[in-house]
Amino acid sequence: MLFANTPNPPYYAVIFTSQRTENEADSYHSMADLMVALASKQPGFLGVESAREKSGLGITVSYWDSLDAIQQWKENLFHQKAQEKGKKDWYSSYITRICKVEKNYTISN
Amino acid sequence: MLFANTPNPPYYAVIFTSQRTENEADSYHSMADLMVALASKQPGFLGVESAREKSGLGITVSYWDSLDAIQQWKENLFHQKAQEKGKKDWYSSYITRICKVEKNYTISN
Repeated sequence: MLFANTPNPPYYAVIFTSQRTENEADSYHSMADLMVALASKQPGFLGVESAREKSGLGITVSYWDSLDAIQQWKENLFHQKAQEKGKKDWYSSYITRICKVEKNYTISN
Repeated sequence: MLFANTPNPPYYAVIFTSQRTENEADSYHSMADLMVALASKQPGFLGVESAREKSGLGITVSYWDSLDAIQQWKENLFHQKAQEKGKKDWYSSYITRICKVEKNYTISN
């Protein structure tokens, strides 16, 4: 089970939808793992969920306790380097959406 | 490119994170396609993005112009039937998060 163990709302979500290029799969995966490890140490980080199709279309949602926590992660220097590399080589396009989670419901069989 | 062509914020997102069982792949895919076709005809539907790992972990995000549009889709009778079937057979667990999208930024190379 790889769901983020988020608290009761409200909290915040960053939905990152991206189309991968076929460039540099190995370095991409190393960086993606490193970014999750770094994000996990940021103040206000609540969890992350991620899935990618074989076609290269992927969705990563990270969860945060405040907009300020999201802004701090955006400004993290290692993250900025990764973002630059992502724009240049790893993604042909992406869209980032910043959201306030207002409600959630869950089932687990 | 399979990104949802959403307007300027604010609008709403439903993040549906799920773990698929290995049951009934064919009927699942038919129903998933039908649900996207039906949702697309609902008032207030703005688009949908979806990705699933080989492991069965998937994220589907649908976008809507209001909470009322989300509620109407939740109450749609065909959608309710699909939700019941999903709980019973297709998903071992899921979490649905209702969010207000406050900002977005995009790149396209």
